[in-house]
Amino acid sequence: MFYHDGKLQYNVRVDKPNPQFAKLLQQAIGGIEGEIRVCLQYLFQAWNSRGPQKYRDMLMETGTEEIAHIEMLATAVCLNLEGSSSALKDEMAKANPMVEAVMGGRDPRHILSGGLGAMATDANGVPFNGSWVVSSGNIAADMHANVMAEATGRVLATRLYEMTDDSGMKDMLAFLIARDTMHQNQWMAVLEELGPDTHPIPNSFPSNLQNENVAYSFISTSVDGNTNARGRWTEGTSIDGKGIFTFEKAVPTGGMPSLAPGDKEVHGQIEQGVKPDADFFDKVKDIIG
Amino acid sequence: MFYHDGKLQYNVRVDKPNPQFAKLLQQAIGGIEGEIRVCLQYLFQAWNSRGPQKYRDMLMETGTEEIAHIEMLATAVCLNLEGSSSALKDEMAKANPMVEAVMGGRDPRHILSGGLGAMATDANGVPFNGSWVVSSGNIAADMHANVMAEATGRVLATRLYEMTDDSGMKDMLAFLIARDTMHQNQWMAVLEELGPDTHPIPNSFPSNLQNENVAYSFISTSVDGNTNARGRWTEGTSIDGKGIFTFEKAVPTGGMPSLAPGDKEVHGQIEQGVKPDADFFDKVKDIIG
Amino acid sequence: MFYHDGKLQYNVRVDKPNPQFAKLLQQAIGGIEGEIRVCLQYLFQAWNSRGPQKYRDMLMETGTEEIAHIEMLATAVCLNLEGSSSALKDEMAKANPMVEAVMGGRDPRHILSGGLGAMATDANGVPFNGSWVVSSGNIAADMHANVMAEATGRVLATRLYEMTDDSGMKDMLAFLIARDTMHQNQWMAVLEELGPDTHPIPNSFPSNLQNENVAYSFISTSVDGNTNARGRWTEGTSIDGKGIFTFEKAVPTGGMPSLAPGDKEVHGQIEQGVKPDADFFDKVKDIIG
Amino acid sequence: MFYHDGKLQYNVRVDKPNPQFAKLLQQAIGGIEGEIRVCLQYLFQAWNSRGPQKYRDMLMETGTEEIAHIEMLATAVCLNLEGSSSALKDEMAKANPMVEAVMGGRDPRHILSGGLGAMATDANGVPFNGSWVVSSGNIAADMHANVMAEATGRVLATRLYEMTDDSGMKDMLAFLIARDTMHQNQWMAVLEELGPDTHPIPNSFPSNLQNENVAYSFISTSVDGNTNARGRWTEGTSIDGKGIFTFEKAVPTGGMPSLAPGDKEVHGQIEQGVKPDADFFDKVKDIIG
Amino acid sequence: MFYHDGKLQYNVRVDKPNPQFAKLLQQAIGGIEGEIRVCLQYLFQAWNSRGPQKYRDMLMETGTEEIAHIEMLATAVCLNLEGSSSALKDEMAKANPMVEAVMGGRDPRHILSGGLGAMATDANGVPFNGSWVVSSGNIAADMHANVMAEATGRVLATRLYEMTDDSGMKDMLAFLIARDTMHQNQWMAVLEELGPDTHPIPNSFPSNLQNENVAYSFISTSVDGNTNARGRWTEGTSIDGKGIFTFEKAVPTGGMPSLAPGDKEVHGQIEQGVKPDADFFDKVKDIIG
Amino acid sequence: MFYHDGKLQYNVRVDKPNPQFAKLLQQAIGGIEGEIRVCLQYLFQAWNSRGPQKYRDMLMETGTEEIAHIEMLATAVCLNLEGSSSALKDEMAKANPMVEAVMGGRDPRHILSGGLGAMATDANGVPFNGSWVVSSGNIAADMHANVMAEATGRVLATRLYEMTDDSGMKDMLAFLIARDTMHQNQWMAVLEELGPDTHPIPNSFPSNLQNENVAYSFISTSVDGNTNARGRWTEGTSIDGKGIFTFEKAVPTGGMPSLAPGDKEVHGQIEQGVKPDADFFDKVKDIIG
Repeated sequence: MFYHDGKLQYNVRVDKPNPQFAKLLQQAIGGIEGEIRVCLQYLFQAWNSRGPQKYRDMLMETGTEEIAHIEMLATAVCLNLEGSSSALKDEMAKANPMVEAVMGGRDPRHILSGGLGAMATDANGVPFNGSWVVSSGNIAADMHANVMAEATGRVLATRLYEMTDDSGMKDMLAFLIARDTMHQNQWMAVLEELGPDTHPIPNSFPSNLQNENVAYSFISTSVDGNTNARGRWTEGTSIDGKGIFTFEKAVPTGGMPSLAPGDKEVHGQIEQGVKPDADFFDKVKDIIG
Repeated sequence: MFYHDGKLQYNVRVDKPNPQFAKLLQQAIGGIEGEIRVCLQYLFQAWNSRGPQKYRDMLMETGTEEIAHIEMLATAVCLNLEGSSSALKDEMAKANPMVEAVMGGRDPRHILSGGLGAMATDANGVPFNGSWVVSSGNIAADMHANVMAEATGRVLATRLYEMTDDSGMKDMLAFLIARDTMHQNQWMAVLEELGPDTHPIPNSFPSNLQNENVAYSFISTSVDGNTNARGRWTEGTSIDGKGIFTFEKAVPTGGMPSLAPGDKEVHGQIEQGVKPDADFFDKVKDIIG
Repeated sequence: MFYHDGKLQYNVRVDKPNPQFAKLLQQAIGGIEGEIRVCLQYLFQAWNSRGPQKYRDMLMETGTEEIAHIEMLATAVCLNLEGSSSALKDEMAKANPMVEAVMGGRDPRHILSGGLGAMATDANGVPFNGSWVVSSGNIAADMHANVMAEATGRVLATRLYEMTDDSGMKDMLAFLIARDTMHQNQWMAVLEELGPDTHPIPNSFPSNLQNENVAYSFISTSVDGNTNARGRWTEGTSIDGKGIFTFEKAVPTGGMPSLAPGDKEVHGQIEQGVKPDADFFDKVKDIIG
Repeated sequence: MFYHDGKLQYNVRVDKPNPQFAKLLQQAIGGIEGEIRVCLQYLFQAWNSRGPQKYRDMLMETGTEEIAHIEMLATAVCLNLEGSSSALKDEMAKANPMVEAVMGGRDPRHILSGGLGAMATDANGVPFNGSWVVSSGNIAADMHANVMAEATGRVLATRLYEMTDDSGMKDMLAFLIARDTMHQNQWMAVLEELGPDTHPIPNSFPSNLQNENVAYSFISTSVDGNTNARGRWTEGTSIDGKGIFTFEKAVPTGGMPSLAPGDKEVHGQIEQGVKPDADFFDKVKDIIG
Repeated sequence: MFYHDGKLQYNVRVDKPNPQFAKLLQQAIGGIEGEIRVCLQYLFQAWNSRGPQKYRDMLMETGTEEIAHIEMLATAVCLNLEGSSSALKDEMAKANPMVEAVMGGRDPRHILSGGLGAMATDANGVPFNGSWVVSSGNIAADMHANVMAEATGRVLATRLYEMTDDSGMKDMLAFLIARDTMHQNQWMAVLEELGPDTHPIPNSFPSNLQNENVAYSFISTSVDGNTNARGRWTEGTSIDGKGIFTFEKAVPTGGMPSLAPGDKEVHGQIEQGVKPDADFFDKVKDIIG
Repeated sequence: MFYHDGKLQYNVRVDKPNPQFAKLLQQAIGGIEGEIRVCLQYLFQAWNSRGPQKYRDMLMETGTEEIAHIEMLATAVCLNLEGSSSALKDEMAKANPMVEAVMGGRDPRHILSGGLGAMATDANGVPFNGSWVVSSGNIAADMHANVMAEATGRVLATRLYEMTDDSGMKDMLAFLIARDTMHQNQWMAVLEELGPDTHPIPNSFPSNLQNENVAYSFISTSVDGNTNARGRWTEGTSIDGKGIFTFEKAVPTGGMPSLAPGDKEVHGQIEQGVKPDADFFDKVKDIIG
């Protein structure tokens, strides 16, 4: 169960409202790198957690923290929109080019749909999509999904930091950037704790069932062999410690695929070898009567 | 530029067509864990690549290989659908419950829309979504996105492996599972090569600009402190080597947020403190005339 | 069946084409508050209508009217786009900042995809989504969905009204705003006609089957009881007349959830308690041969 | 800020795991009538709240309660999936029709993607969509959106109640149905408190600016006048008390729309009156050189 | 403006309700090949029509007819669902496998969300998507979009015809299949009327502005020249009569792309050549103070 | 299988980076008229191909070429974004209106999410959607889908051509426009080769099974017969040569639809004729105990 106190986890201050920045902040709310995604991702991973209790607890702790981050960002959007519709209206009375400038870079739905409030969308107004919530039932895969979410999330936050001169907004973002530092470390700490036998994921699939001939080969699809794609991944022991990296040129071993003609009932064209049933008409008329 | 030879990278054999399994295979084609996603993800990362040429080349090599994996899976879907519409039609003539059984577990669009062919959708018929293609402009974040994709992808492939007794399908999946092993290792090898200063991502953001007070604290949101969420992430040096993990109880420091009333122009209710302009009516009539 | 006459329900006049306003109008066409939604919603409710004929008829009447509203708005978008691509081209020949201003606030797809025509999208170019069409099979729930649609729709229309100085557009919007007034009243009139026993919806579910202990309690999740959340909903007879409102502090009564470890076949990590089958390898080899 | 205790708000018990019912429960998690929607909807309304503090507080209280409802339902999905992959595997070894039956009615992604866990999707695997989160900046419109959400939500819950014989699931649903009763009443209580001048929404738009001729007319689009669409909405004082309902036959007053030919630059066909610029070729060559 | 009479364009009769077939019919309502798409597509093309009036009128005529087709199909869905929830409930009381069979092949949302009514979704419950509505501003492109819609639409309808033995449903589909025959012909008739200079589309773009070297070459990407891809498209006069088809082997003429390193502000990794500004920290501190 | 050489098919040169144009180019990458769509469409049609080998080969040739077009456009996006974040940052330090202008017309996610790279989205940031990939199993329907894709694609490319003065971009687009000329011709060549009996599609459905009364009638839904919708489609032999076009006034022949009341179990309102089961309560209590 969940509780709240109505207070912000950290101060949200906007020195000079900026509706363009409100639009950019939406990416951190409802974008794929944003806080709704990590919030639901960690909570679903907690709720679906099978295995040691401490991981469930930890995921719930941090998933709950992320709700407070959505709250901070939604508040930041609201504060950045204050006064903006009046300003817009004043501009609307002036010459066209200015209006165009003012409209440029704003999310029109912040006025039209949200009435100066935050929305569950990204910086282009594309709605949050539940497909981004990864909870795979495999804790190691989930941890990688979480590291990835925090890596792209922190990159996003630093870019937002660069794009504002508002000291309040910079202060808030400096907080969120630090939390992303912790969370990147946190999920990597779980991977470290899971130990050296974590990979390949899932580690519960017997490795001798996979096609071991190609399990550690870098396959080069370069048509002319003219490639610089050599590095740690083409020589030495594999990172999971279970193989030796090799470099192989791609060779098709599967032959040409060959499909049967389509069944009569799916109605390809006759030229595809589909022949209508000679007495089909009669049979159907029997049914229709 | 790209070339093809029409041959399969590895053999695709279906001993006994099974339209239910065709539906499951769609997850590996058009699902979030599937091959269209990794194919486009690696290719976009290659095309957008800024920095050492070898990473661009490597991404292009593997992105190109993934097209061949979509090809294998699409072929597998086609072969699993062969004969299935005729069989369905025969069943349709029989008693209802059997028809229901036969329809159950199939994707109806494999007949209705695809005419016994594969589609760019997942196992529930939900279309592939371009938002899943991660190319962040930060190579370390991208590598984590790639490890994550291959981790969930390999988990998916092993589950598909469990759900079929068709030896041809098991053989094909054993190949794909092995390639996922390599690709997990490959992206981790890049991270290893990037070295110990990779984290926190992005490493080009000066760390003293973040709020260092909370950069390595596990923040517990447990209402009563009754939690098992202690582990590697609550003590010792942080994984990035730049801090010491601590465990802190969540405390709101941001106070209660306070928003101004809505502007007149966005038309909240009067009860929200929105007061219609007294002479608004006159001003508008001036405009309308 | 449906008929048309090619004439507009009400005059659509644009004094000065404004492609920025064309973008805003798209919200009223293809947005969640827009006319495609209410059109399809009322028509589907009519087509799915079970019960008194008069409700089916009324829904069909108004659903049909809404097609004419899409028509008006699509015409308004077209008229606002006239001449705009030439103007844009002229601007493109000038210095960069001006081009940026001109592009700002426009939907680029009005030129690129629509060729100066309206689209089935919202003000951010996000496509209309069929999930918004509510037809629940319960007439009272449907009426509430309709009041909600007309309430957000009228709010949208008044905001559009504020954002234009074009007297033609204001005149058209004044018409649509009035129709939304009627439609809000219309759906509330049905609710009034359905009578005092309408709530809780559905009224055909025996109320003694619900958990009556919590059917009229406001549950407070405030962590410290510091809340102003008292009002009509925390005391007195409930609005449906069937209970007494109370104010209760949230208490978890469900205990800690406990899930079994994942099955072997879904391949969680070994650390989650998933143990690979000892003879699994042999069994599979039997199948593959 | 938010807190949790890891306990369930109410008991979640599954007597006999049923993966088909797990699929149905997903509608109450990630469907348009589901708990993620109301949770985010109430929280965003709280965070965006402008006006009396008590409404912000109340929305936050209930939005926080809804997180606990997602938690209950996610737990119910997990419990209904327990043992199901093993059972499925056993079936897979048997004859085809049975497998088909067993797969029928299941969400394959519960195994493939979720590993026996809940997902942020609806009963057909369609992901949760952020566009469903309504927060309009107008408290009365928001309250109607909330009544609608709880009305369709309670209808959904009663249907789920009918479709299970599991006493644990019936018990959990009886709890949720009761909470929906309260929440329907709660939002109606706010509307009652807002008072008789609430409608038409928004009430801050001067009513004399709308086209008053059509603000209370039921417009009949019946081609032949043969309609039963008369009722409370065609006579008497309007529900908002500000007009008299009338019944009018639809008459087009807007004339035939007339658009200019497309600009040269958007490249319609020549037959549409688009004439390529005679010296266009020369001008472009000047640029390209 | 639009009118209705409440009657069906053609008889909709269901001899034996079949909820599985109701699910399949949804593809013809809300799927990409379905009637909502063509309805909105033709109406938007009419409303956006620039050029000869007769095309606008014709599009409006047929767009209006398509509303009646949605109506017929929605009615067919409703009739196929009648009695189905009771039947389901009876089955639920019996042994599990039977329930699974009965649930298999049904859309659960037909009960859960629609209450035995049709929805604006496809056969997998994926919502109708406004992006499918093509109205390009170029009449010839639009006509091809329409031929394509009717071609895939008629293919869909014939497949539905094959999948039912219900004579009422076969009769309705025979009607819709015939209408698709007409509509395919209708849009091809417009193309014929537009005449031999229709292609390439758009015909208003001066052909000497395109790169004429590659305007009529079939470019072969076969890696080894081992291809059967020769036919009408590799020799003879082009179909548009403006060139001669040739067969060319693909040759890259564009060289290797080369991108600059990322700007500091977007925070790639340092290893990508991104160097943090030496005095960046100081500059920001100046701003924050 | 697929191969690459890392070189561009044709030169991609940007004389003056323009982030606004980068946004417009996205429509040609991830939009419905764009290259990801045709690439996947032709490849899926090849992989699903049933019938003569030469069509499979031809589709694979061109599908592979299209990957190179995505590559060119992605490179063009990257080059247009170079230097743009620094420029933006400089502007951010200046007065507000200028910032607004600079932000206007840009895709903010090009910085926030892509780090100056291309994305799998359209010009409004709406993600590519797999539903656009048409592969119907009927070669003639597929060819029409392909003509349509190339027709709207070439229209898009000519519009992009008009909207830039950059000679490098014009040169690249002149290449792509020419390729679209070829591809329009190519798919029409297949249709010519398939011969005069191609239509109506599918030609494998016995035409006497359709309702021949309405197979060649233009049905006019004009309410008053006041229509200009006469042309090639209302007289003469039909384009498929199998009928005579006629002009008919729409007449409803299907009567009024009539649905049964909803089943008890779906919980419509009592007023809809749904009567709760008298002993329902007792029966359920038996189950719950």
